[in-house]
Amino acid sequence: MMSKIDNPIKLNPLNDDKLKEECGVFGIHGHEDAAALTALGLHALQHRGQEAAGIVTFDGKQFHGHRAPGHVGDIFSDETVIKNLRGRLSIGHNRYSTTGETAHRNIQPLFAEYDSGGFALSHNGNLTNASVLHRELVKRGCLFHSTTDTEVIIHLIAISTRISVVERLIDALTRVVGAYSLVAMTNNQMIGVRDPMGVRPLVLGSLDGANVLASESCALDIIGAKFIRDVEPGEVLVIDQDGVNSLKPFSQTPSRLCIFEYIYFARPDSIVDGTGVYEVRKKIGAELARESHIEADVIIPVPDSGVPSAMGYASETALPYELGIIRNHYVGRTFIEPSDHIRHLGVKLKHNASRAVIENKRVVLVDDSIVRGTTSVKIVEMIRNAGAKEVHMRIASPPTTHSCFYGVDTPEKDQLLASNNSVQEMRKFIGADTLAFVSLDGLYRAMGLNGRNEEKPQYCDACFTGEYPVRLVDFDGGEIAPQMSFLSTLG
Amino acid sequence: MMSKIDNPIKLNPLNDDKLKEECGVFGIHGHEDAAALTALGLHALQHRGQEAAGIVTFDGKQFHGHRAPGHVGDIFSDETVIKNLRGRLSIGHNRYSTTGETAHRNIQPLFAEYDSGGFALSHNGNLTNASVLHRELVKRGCLFHSTTDTEVIIHLIAISTRISVVERLIDALTRVVGAYSLVAMTNNQMIGVRDPMGVRPLVLGSLDGANVLASESCALDIIGAKFIRDVEPGEVLVIDQDGVNSLKPFSQTPSRLCIFEYIYFARPDSIVDGTGVYEVRKKIGAELARESHIEADVIIPVPDSGVPSAMGYASETALPYELGIIRNHYVGRTFIEPSDHIRHLGVKLKHNASRAVIENKRVVLVDDSIVRGTTSVKIVEMIRNAGAKEVHMRIASPPTTHSCFYGVDTPEKDQLLASNNSVQEMRKFIGADTLAFVSLDGLYRAMGLNGRNEEKPQYCDACFTGEYPVRLVDFDGGEIAPQMSFLSTLG
Amino acid sequence: MMSKIDNPIKLNPLNDDKLKEECGVFGIHGHEDAAALTALGLHALQHRGQEAAGIVTFDGKQFHGHRAPGHVGDIFSDETVIKNLRGRLSIGHNRYSTTGETAHRNIQPLFAEYDSGGFALSHNGNLTNASVLHRELVKRGCLFHSTTDTEVIIHLIAISTRISVVERLIDALTRVVGAYSLVAMTNNQMIGVRDPMGVRPLVLGSLDGANVLASESCALDIIGAKFIRDVEPGEVLVIDQDGVNSLKPFSQTPSRLCIFEYIYFARPDSIVDGTGVYEVRKKIGAELARESHIEADVIIPVPDSGVPSAMGYASETALPYELGIIRNHYVGRTFIEPSDHIRHLGVKLKHNASRAVIENKRVVLVDDSIVRGTTSVKIVEMIRNAGAKEVHMRIASPPTTHSCFYGVDTPEKDQLLASNNSVQEMRKFIGADTLAFVSLDGLYRAMGLNGRNEEKPQYCDACFTGEYPVRLVDFDGGEIAPQMSFLSTLG
Amino acid sequence: MMSKIDNPIKLNPLNDDKLKEECGVFGIHGHEDAAALTALGLHALQHRGQEAAGIVTFDGKQFHGHRAPGHVGDIFSDETVIKNLRGRLSIGHNRYSTTGETAHRNIQPLFAEYDSGGFALSHNGNLTNASVLHRELVKRGCLFHSTTDTEVIIHLIAISTRISVVERLIDALTRVVGAYSLVAMTNNQMIGVRDPMGVRPLVLGSLDGANVLASESCALDIIGAKFIRDVEPGEVLVIDQDGVNSLKPFSQTPSRLCIFEYIYFARPDSIVDGTGVYEVRKKIGAELARESHIEADVIIPVPDSGVPSAMGYASETALPYELGIIRNHYVGRTFIEPSDHIRHLGVKLKHNASRAVIENKRVVLVDDSIVRGTTSVKIVEMIRNAGAKEVHMRIASPPTTHSCFYGVDTPEKDQLLASNNSVQEMRKFIGADTLAFVSLDGLYRAMGLNGRNEEKPQYCDACFTGEYPVRLVDFDGGEIAPQMSFLSTLG
Repeated sequence: MMSKIDNPIKLNPLNDDKLKEECGVFGIHGHEDAAALTALGLHALQHRGQEAAGIVTFDGKQFHGHRAPGHVGDIFSDETVIKNLRGRLSIGHNRYSTTGETAHRNIQPLFAEYDSGGFALSHNGNLTNASVLHRELVKRGCLFHSTTDTEVIIHLIAISTRISVVERLIDALTRVVGAYSLVAMTNNQMIGVRDPMGVRPLVLGSLDGANVLASESCALDIIGAKFIRDVEPGEVLVIDQDGVNSLKPFSQTPSRLCIFEYIYFARPDSIVDGTGVYEVRKKIGAELARESHIEADVIIPVPDSGVPSAMGYASETALPYELGIIRNHYVGRTFIEPSDHIRHLGVKLKHNASRAVIENKRVVLVDDSIVRGTTSVKIVEMIRNAGAKEVHMRIASPPTTHSCFYGVDTPEKDQLLASNNSVQEMRKFIGADTLAFVSLDGLYRAMGLNGRNEEKPQYCDACFTGEYPVRLVDFDGGEIAPQMSFLSTLG
Repeated sequence: MMSKIDNPIKLNPLNDDKLKEECGVFGIHGHEDAAALTALGLHALQHRGQEAAGIVTFDGKQFHGHRAPGHVGDIFSDETVIKNLRGRLSIGHNRYSTTGETAHRNIQPLFAEYDSGGFALSHNGNLTNASVLHRELVKRGCLFHSTTDTEVIIHLIAISTRISVVERLIDALTRVVGAYSLVAMTNNQMIGVRDPMGVRPLVLGSLDGANVLASESCALDIIGAKFIRDVEPGEVLVIDQDGVNSLKPFSQTPSRLCIFEYIYFARPDSIVDGTGVYEVRKKIGAELARESHIEADVIIPVPDSGVPSAMGYASETALPYELGIIRNHYVGRTFIEPSDHIRHLGVKLKHNASRAVIENKRVVLVDDSIVRGTTSVKIVEMIRNAGAKEVHMRIASPPTTHSCFYGVDTPEKDQLLASNNSVQEMRKFIGADTLAFVSLDGLYRAMGLNGRNEEKPQYCDACFTGEYPVRLVDFDGGEIAPQMSFLSTLG
Repeated sequence: MMSKIDNPIKLNPLNDDKLKEECGVFGIHGHEDAAALTALGLHALQHRGQEAAGIVTFDGKQFHGHRAPGHVGDIFSDETVIKNLRGRLSIGHNRYSTTGETAHRNIQPLFAEYDSGGFALSHNGNLTNASVLHRELVKRGCLFHSTTDTEVIIHLIAISTRISVVERLIDALTRVVGAYSLVAMTNNQMIGVRDPMGVRPLVLGSLDGANVLASESCALDIIGAKFIRDVEPGEVLVIDQDGVNSLKPFSQTPSRLCIFEYIYFARPDSIVDGTGVYEVRKKIGAELARESHIEADVIIPVPDSGVPSAMGYASETALPYELGIIRNHYVGRTFIEPSDHIRHLGVKLKHNASRAVIENKRVVLVDDSIVRGTTSVKIVEMIRNAGAKEVHMRIASPPTTHSCFYGVDTPEKDQLLASNNSVQEMRKFIGADTLAFVSLDGLYRAMGLNGRNEEKPQYCDACFTGEYPVRLVDFDGGEIAPQMSFLSTLG
Repeated sequence: MMSKIDNPIKLNPLNDDKLKEECGVFGIHGHEDAAALTALGLHALQHRGQEAAGIVTFDGKQFHGHRAPGHVGDIFSDETVIKNLRGRLSIGHNRYSTTGETAHRNIQPLFAEYDSGGFALSHNGNLTNASVLHRELVKRGCLFHSTTDTEVIIHLIAISTRISVVERLIDALTRVVGAYSLVAMTNNQMIGVRDPMGVRPLVLGSLDGANVLASESCALDIIGAKFIRDVEPGEVLVIDQDGVNSLKPFSQTPSRLCIFEYIYFARPDSIVDGTGVYEVRKKIGAELARESHIEADVIIPVPDSGVPSAMGYASETALPYELGIIRNHYVGRTFIEPSDHIRHLGVKLKHNASRAVIENKRVVLVDDSIVRGTTSVKIVEMIRNAGAKEVHMRIASPPTTHSCFYGVDTPEKDQLLASNNSVQEMRKFIGADTLAFVSLDGLYRAMGLNGRNEEKPQYCDACFTGEYPVRLVDFDGGEIAPQMSFLSTLG
């Protein structure tokens, strides 16, 4: 589910210039602490969406929901909130949000009261024909209450002529195009779905006999749940008191998991589709060193996303790995900066380059990616100000040249530094002495493959290549995203 | 629009035992301060609904809304709130509400994004076939987001096959049964509607060339608007830049304005359907004195609703009128009362009987109505404790024996004291020496008539007579009000 | 205790132009619900200070306090607040306040930790030599934490060389000049003091064996306490487990109670120094009618302070008394008024003149006093706009020509309309057809006397006469009030 | 300044079991953005006190202050707060705090209004004769408004008979015993003081001609200020428009800086008394490896405090350094844990051990210190649960056996694990296979010395040795800390 609102709370300004995963989903069926465990699961998935979160539960008679802007730990820290979310079946969602109702009405899980009963839905990903469908549904008399693509699925279910909710959901999904990992619930079932190409991850786990669905395995770890398996691309899991039933209602296509999950999105301790994220990142660092090493004195990561690849890089080169950039852990909200004298202090507010480590050194700075390049400029400058003799920037992903339409917040193509500039121009822009990216094949090698299969690429790497595996229906048709003409706030 | 949630903030405990009008509506078309004037109008109508309020405006491109629980003066006291409600067209609504989203999703004006554009709706009254329609609409695939009867109208418009919004609204209204005064808006029109019997009031005014709609004339006074006329029963006013266009699309029926508007609901300074409320109340007091006076020393009103009728009563009898019950104007929220020793202090918290005025006197206490009788018990006791020799209770309305289904919060029939008790039993219950109510004909005489026309009663007086002029479709069909299975809160 | 900060929350704009009593005090010794009863007592005294309130209790081991800006009903509505104020001994205070710590540090009761133990103090009145003493104490090394005159007493006690706290308090009071009614407490005593002239009222009551002190008898009524007697001018009451001990440590002087307590400050249901306030007000109205009646059709009070005198006036003249100005009971905070078009609506926001009652009438408007005259201008205009043929203003007090220095918030002398204008000029200013004030002797007659004793006036009437019974030491010495150089806020 | 209230907001549960530095101080003289720069400086010093913060400024006429519980970034994020803190002279303070006024009255800078004018004071450290002095001052008639030892200094200044404020401050300091780094201000001077032994750090810097004082150099870095020099033990710096004037009014003693500043308190990028903290920590790790290395497969730091020493350890042993414990950066407030099933999840909430890195490995875990040992138990268990074959705990400080009385929040001696247990018993308690601490001499070697000078130790290491360089007057005299008998809250 996609939104273009900026995160007002930036925990790490060095992460300002990153692509942003837009959602995390979680669900648990059959546990007496369902809501509390969902809150914990969402907390472990906080990195997938930091702007709002919600939980819906069912207690045997009634659905209960709580949705709010902010971080999971704040939203669900009030004991009564969790207590009111009664029941043994619960699903949750992390996403972006902003102030006011604009945010509120878009916070998931979405809920609908069907003829057959209540239904709640959490969505990670993005539909690429939502605008076309939205227009059609409004014409029919459907009233939308959010600006999310996810609500399209809600209405398609409402008007489906099939009988059971699962059939109506599958009927609805045959109409949509896009990337989606869904966790839904009725008054007795939990349903997990991964789109036919499996662009976004989804795992199945179990805890004390209860079944769990989550975007990443780290959300199983936090509650002590056992990892069972990844949900397969195109699979629909229907979970009720009789257990887990697997359906494969869609035509088969080769899987195309988003490779950026390994580069930046997923948490380093997650294992995604069978591969450990931290290990991949160290291997990318090693590949990067093999492909582009230069004589230097010290390897310094851009915290925190550059840490594993910098360690892999340092290990491969046997050069000292040093924490040359110290992070202030107490970041809070942005400070007011009342004059221009102070405005330029922005970056140091949250980080400080350690002169003792850097002065008179040839520094290799390792980061995971460059998007607009704006932050890289500041980091390179900060390292130079701390006395570095040379600054060599090494990036643990290929140049990001294309926007994502599958549930990632990317700038427009023309804002992507690599889209309009050669590596040499980029180097000049960020002010480094040298700049190098890992190659596309190097990236695939770090994944344990021999390289990219150019015929049938093993992953979605559209942001590096422009090869979009799922049709961009709205975009190709010039369809503009549905805008609500109503800006509403709640007191 | 109807809700059964109790008002958490009770400004006057002597009003606890009153019927409660459930909504006030207001709109203005064509004024640069539209939102601010709407806030003022709602403020003047605060007595018609104290639990939540909302405003929707249109600025030529975009609709803006703000809705919140609480009093108008608090909700709209923030300068930025009013500033964000941009535009020259604005409608608003007062109603009951409570905490959490249960309240939020029901706060009006409701808004819908139709194929033809945005639409907002404020409703005073109550539909009596909302449940039947709700069931039918959900079957069709309509998704409800509130538990209000008003949303039924919203969906009926959405699925109407007529072309213009006004036609679709009229089409929708031919399906509904009940009492309704509506103020609606599109992106260029303001629409006012009063149901065929005109159960709830609605007036048209003008200010600086802008047209204004409001539940009562006091909302015109507050902004300095000129009273033009009452909207007629069954009339649809369509207001745009070309002025006011009157439609009469419904079959004609005799009007049946709620007579309780004169007894308690409307503000004393309002003029409702041509008759001044304060004057009527004084006349009811005079009728009451003529019908049931007893020898006494002093006439004391139950503040504040008994004041005009007590003045009329005193004037008719030439007995001294005294403020024997002093009200504390600083009431705030309910105090915590940590022990039984203190709990019984409840009434004195906000009122105090003045011993100097009451001691050794034969007191006639005048109140406007008795509903459950619980407060009357306390008042009579308070007067006796202040030393009254005799306490004679006189009520400026007939006994309230039946529930209202037309937009008034009434207890169930069996909770109404007069429903199960003779006047003599009621007297005993409240502890007065004598008790008398004005007669039904006396009430109609105070309205300037010769008495009630038993064939064709001039007003709706169902709460006194059980003669319901509008069919109670849901109630007669045993239809239960639509309940949402989803209890949701917003952080 | 005196402060010049304006009340941000104005419940009744018709009261904007009033003198303002600056404090209410309350205490109870020996009751298990001490804090809750104190909150109730302060609530009944809310009219004596609406900007902040505080309570201090002692539980046998520890003092507990809670102090906040706002109304009593809001500050003490939270159950845990009252529960934390443990103990059977409690004192409280109402006063003005404002936002931020400026307010917080000045909110009473003040508390001091003496060598002998804790001590808390509530003060109604104003010291007239506080600045002189303040300067002397700071020189000695005393550190002030508030800008209140009351803290001077706190430090004088701290440095007194006497032994017991009561002796030290009396020692301190021999140093101060001014008006003061005090309620203080140690860890086992409650102490009540009224200054030698008894300028401010203070009463003693009892409830269930507990002794109670309060500014007015209405604070006894609210908790069902029995009125025992007024504390006498110059009397020190020391209350402990053995009962009430009366001391008279000061030299005797004739009493000079503030006569304005009867005109406006005290609540109508209070009995102050043996005389009922409501009855006095009606009698002032009758005197006013006898002195200055003019032919007219209707008597209309300015609500609410003009109500009893208007009733007395109407009764004396046998003219109809009508509620020609209707008050909106839902006032909330001030609305935002975004344009000049709206600003002039100010008064109607909270009141509306009833055309039905006023049109084509010769109106006598009765109010209790005129201070600056600004509100009178608006009221007269409002009555004229409602169609009055003539407007005759009658004031139930003599012209207010002098400032008060004894605990009342008065404008500077040159802001008082009567200070610089003849009655005729005042009439012109407010726009009335005629204007009359009750005479000084008429006022004293309404008090049950034959008139004012010019040699030994029976009351303090300095605001009407400029005869100040207590020396104005600071003012006469040109001493400027102590200002703290520290503006501090608390998050 | 010392307080025993626990931090309600725990950013890192692995830090629960740490000694806690109790204050950070900062000041700037002569800069137009004084308050904003102070907020930034305090933000950089957030690790020295996370529970409350305050700033006082002087604008040439008036002092301004803002003090609140919470983190600097939250307290000073509101633009108007900074704008109201007008002036070119500003000091600030970080400390512990809690809810209510108990906290509020103790939040520094403290402010006093002396005969000579305003004075504000920030204190890092703890006085060891505060109770004795407090008792004496109260007897004299001084009224305390906080429970801080710092207020003792405030009163000693007030009663000093010297003339200038600087002389009175020095006079006051001759009376106190303890550890203190002070930053104070009058209406034109900023004053920095370090106690004769220099137990707590304090540095002088400059920015655009303005002089800056701060607890650590990282607070200079954040605002781009130049480091000038450390304030010397026993030095009093008086800073005004003419520059910096150094006084040495106290008798000379050898310096005894707290060695724990290098182990845990100071930020790794600070340079304290000439030595870089990050470098020292790596060297301690190397010493630790040399002293106690054991055969193993991987070195894992306990994040974040164990990171530099683990890097030093790994580098010395040439073993792989791995991030085996992943931290969730979105921690927020503590979650509600509604059942025992969930309670045991506590640690994973914020950290997760990475099975991929740990499984079947012999792990050396490196942490900076063990206090109670409670967290170490959980970490070792977490590592074992992730599949470690062996867990060897290495601690980068000697066993902590004694409490600190110089401004550090330490548990009572009997709560210190090392106080009552041999290393072997401690190993058993925490469940590790082996446990070793760096030796005291090893620690001094990492500081660049040959070892500890047993005659004249170069640092204060009382927490490891029990040799307290500053007399514990209150403690030795059995003096109990001054307790206020007043528990007060502010609304």
